[in-house]
Amino acid sequence: MQFHERPRFPRGFRCASRHVGLKADGKDLALFVSEVEAPAAAVFTRNLFPGAPVALGREQMKGGGRLRGIVVNSKISNVATGEAGLKHARRMAEAAAREIGATADRILVSSTGVIGIPLPIEKIESGIQGMAAELQDDPVVGVQGMMTTDTHPKALSLSVGDATITWVAKGSGMIEPNMATMLAYIFTDAALTAMDLDGMLRAAVRVSFNMLSVDGDTSTSDTCVIMANGLAGPVEAKAFSEALVAGCIRMTEMLARDGEGATRLVRAVVRRAKTAADARRVAKSLVNSPLIKTMVNGADPNVGRILMAVGKTFDATIVPAKVSASVNGLEVVSQGTRVAFDDGVARTALLSDTVEIVVDLGVGGETATAYGCDLSTGYITENAAYYSS
Amino acid sequence: MQFHERPRFPRGFRCASRHVGLKADGKDLALFVSEVEAPAAAVFTRNLFPGAPVALGREQMKGGGRLRGIVVNSKISNVATGEAGLKHARRMAEAAAREIGATADRILVSSTGVIGIPLPIEKIESGIQGMAAELQDDPVVGVQGMMTTDTHPKALSLSVGDATITWVAKGSGMIEPNMATMLAYIFTDAALTAMDLDGMLRAAVRVSFNMLSVDGDTSTSDTCVIMANGLAGPVEAKAFSEALVAGCIRMTEMLARDGEGATRLVRAVVRRAKTAADARRVAKSLVNSPLIKTMVNGADPNVGRILMAVGKTFDATIVPAKVSASVNGLEVVSQGTRVAFDDGVARTALLSDTVEIVVDLGVGGETATAYGCDLSTGYITENAAYYSS
Repeated sequence: MQFHERPRFPRGFRCASRHVGLKADGKDLALFVSEVEAPAAAVFTRNLFPGAPVALGREQMKGGGRLRGIVVNSKISNVATGEAGLKHARRMAEAAAREIGATADRILVSSTGVIGIPLPIEKIESGIQGMAAELQDDPVVGVQGMMTTDTHPKALSLSVGDATITWVAKGSGMIEPNMATMLAYIFTDAALTAMDLDGMLRAAVRVSFNMLSVDGDTSTSDTCVIMANGLAGPVEAKAFSEALVAGCIRMTEMLARDGEGATRLVRAVVRRAKTAADARRVAKSLVNSPLIKTMVNGADPNVGRILMAVGKTFDATIVPAKVSASVNGLEVVSQGTRVAFDDGVARTALLSDTVEIVVDLGVGGETATAYGCDLSTGYITENAAYYSS
Repeated sequence: MQFHERPRFPRGFRCASRHVGLKADGKDLALFVSEVEAPAAAVFTRNLFPGAPVALGREQMKGGGRLRGIVVNSKISNVATGEAGLKHARRMAEAAAREIGATADRILVSSTGVIGIPLPIEKIESGIQGMAAELQDDPVVGVQGMMTTDTHPKALSLSVGDATITWVAKGSGMIEPNMATMLAYIFTDAALTAMDLDGMLRAAVRVSFNMLSVDGDTSTSDTCVIMANGLAGPVEAKAFSEALVAGCIRMTEMLARDGEGATRLVRAVVRRAKTAADARRVAKSLVNSPLIKTMVNGADPNVGRILMAVGKTFDATIVPAKVSASVNGLEVVSQGTRVAFDDGVARTALLSDTVEIVVDLGVGGETATAYGCDLSTGYITENAAYYSS
């Protein structure tokens, strides 16, 4: 897959972002718009305390969605805010709908930030006025309004035949999505039905955003949505699906690499597992283990921890003597036993920008890959004062 | 329960510790001995890569154990070391048996430290010689030989009737025991059968060490053993069981409070859950959430994260509108919604030495308590260089 050097929108999509006063400074509201109504599909957080925008979004997308746009604010997540929160989410949709000349049921709402604080809806209602006149062709402009602790805006695009697919997303903590991701929006001008989009999106999310973990915490606001406005006409379904998967994985890696405090991407590949569930479970255990994450952070080749993390997946089929493992190609475990290696070589492997841990379970034919990052003191300092800062 | 001001041994138990050259300096070998053979019971790690000492211990304890002593080394865990590792564990038992005049099958072996490095068994075999002559009455002396990143030796004792129960243990990272704990040894002079001990130990571990998590990582060496040498004669079973539970919980709190980098004990109490499994799952989710742990570390009242951590227990019965929560008595959530509170008051609550988060699920009658700690930059710096230091 060849990603565009500079991310761009498909035909008919534009965006804008603004500072409306939720953050002390910096952009805090974004608007993504399709000039025509688009079939859409979405997956949301499995957290049992979903935010008001997630509750509203589920209702809107029931039985096949159609969207004109997405409005999203950062700083406050509108979660655990009761009936008032739901009203605020509806008012946010109405404000965006008025602005772009649509109905509120065609606007998907997201909010991200601190949980439990009332959303200052008036600031959003007045701040959004005139944004339609500022809509631009650069997806990065929209991302700027939805960032929280992200260190850079995340956007990607690629071409599939005559169509384009564009991803925009924000990370970067409270991330182990489980059926969706933090906030990831995908736009395409390919012509596809809501039902097709739903199947393709779920398949792509399963191997990408759902295999991402920054910290094992599952946000109450996770939302991943795809809009297909059809302006480029039909596409070859298989090529589109493959491109969708490739872009979702690439965006997953971008999110992992920019996890709060992260300095490196950790990719855990599990091979020859007995079941697909085992492969996924072991791969997730590897990227979620704080002792592996700190090992990578310090480039300290304490590789026995890999076996610890494999072995704590109690329900998986693990035959210790059949397990082997490598770190960026350096064999560190063979037949369940640590092999002798040069510490300096191992240290160099762990210092790579991307650390790929491959574990071969030797008991079947299933594979899975999970995406994570190291755990640094930066994660602690960011999250020990997130609410107050 | 009244714990002794200064921990002491039951009748007939003594210990010694030495530096035998595994660590650069500091004690690295400990020996605990009963002067007479004692019925014993043990629980071990559920990790699927158990260390050689765990494999040996399981074999010894099968069908009701009898022990004369425990030998334990720190610095190297003898895990993922293959057949050679098992031979080393046997040789370690034999060396201790020779020293105290017992047979090797009556010696339980533990090793704790780096995974995957061969155990320098010769250093242990020569270093142990003469230790029998150094046996002392102070349990703390033994603990000194088994510490890794612990900041202080952990020992406790109390009386039950005429008998005494003594706990010694080490923490302090790679701790989410799941059926056992890191290394915890319990000694008593009460007269009890191995079968009685087994039942009582499992019941106590279930509500104590198994509800402990420092970092969610499950060690490959977890071992909890109880020896009852009978020198004080029979005890009232109910009183003994209650004392055993109380001491295990107290030791669990000591371990949590001294978790790697920890500055505070976090106790998560879940009430009115639908099932006992739900209560345990939600309590564990609270103490394992890095975002709650960093919130406590920074005394930053980002209490919405409590709902996030409750809500990510996907399989539990959670009715958001019935959930309430408090932090050290300050109500922060009512009917699933964050309540208004003074940030300064919340900050003071989070600055306490012990932070108790109580979550009332309002859907049943089951309760559970989990024990953990905050997550600080100290955890990162310790674990980013544990292997090399």
